[in-house]
Amino acid sequence: MKTTAYIGTSLDGFIARKDGEIDWLTQFENQEINQSYTEFINEIDAIVIGRGTFEKVLTFPTWFYQQKVFVLSTQIKEIPNNLKEKVTLLSMEPKELLHYLSNEGYSNIYVDGGKVIQSFLKENLLNELIITRVPVLIGKGIPLFGPLYKDLSFKHIQTKVYSNGLVKSHYERI
Amino acid sequence: MKTTAYIGTSLDGFIARKDGEIDWLTQFENQEINQSYTEFINEIDAIVIGRGTFEKVLTFPTWFYQQKVFVLSTQIKEIPNNLKEKVTLLSMEPKELLHYLSNEGYSNIYVDGGKVIQSFLKENLLNELIITRVPVLIGKGIPLFGPLYKDLSFKHIQTKVYSNGLVKSHYERI
Repeated sequence: MKTTAYIGTSLDGFIARKDGEIDWLTQFENQEINQSYTEFINEIDAIVIGRGTFEKVLTFPTWFYQQKVFVLSTQIKEIPNNLKEKVTLLSMEPKELLHYLSNEGYSNIYVDGGKVIQSFLKENLLNELIITRVPVLIGKGIPLFGPLYKDLSFKHIQTKVYSNGLVKSHYERI
Repeated sequence: MKTTAYIGTSLDGFIARKDGEIDWLTQFENQEINQSYTEFINEIDAIVIGRGTFEKVLTFPTWFYQQKVFVLSTQIKEIPNNLKEKVTLLSMEPKELLHYLSNEGYSNIYVDGGKVIQSFLKENLLNELIITRVPVLIGKGIPLFGPLYKDLSFKHIQTKVYSNGLVKSHYERI
């Protein structure tokens, strides 16, 4: 079972502005970037997100994810009817969730969104970290990382520089 | 006149632990990393630091910087006697300081330390940013970046990956 975070951040480590806005990030989208995401997501069989990411994705014109999505939330009470086949609402801790997903036959999990990534890192349950840095400082916002119980060391696997200045680094937990 | 920050951070954007400790960073020091720093510092003619960095550097066994150092602080009252030829104490805002340094004939300024780098970025007075990311999350500490009045965009110049997993990215202000 493998868990991976694949996420874009500002140079100062934010994944969105305070209000969730990601204009500073999406301005860098292009075919090269999208292809890299497609290659990653094609290997994934389940996606775990939190309330914040779910609510953001609901504002997109069409449903964004191809794979089965698990929303971790105690606050959301129900998934909209048109998404009930694609989205499952769960209220579990990361460890419990991974047991559940493993029992359900999933083995390659994409962990998305700041809070959920932070909760997985806190329990040292994230195997891979793929961070794409956008060459912009936004000064404040929703941070990718949060407090930990102890240092977490990673092995650098690969860094790719895109023609528009994005830098994607791939790390594996040691 | 060029101002550059050249600094190492954890993956989560800290330049030191809360108590100033940089053990997680120095464990990655090697000849390759030191040579890169030497190449950078040889082009520099003045170094600007704040109280925090100055007090940290004072704990090193020997005086660390080759070039003339300017310490920006309102709290420090005097420079130790043995450093008075190498270190000048100033209480100025970044813009005023750059005028002063320019008048003194300096043209390639190394801006070091979190607070000072942040104060330069806030006034959009930093031309280049060279960040070396260490593959460790430390969870909390002294952050490299802080609040800004507005977004700051950079151009990616070059990224170098070191054999021990450090990733150094060089950005220029747009």
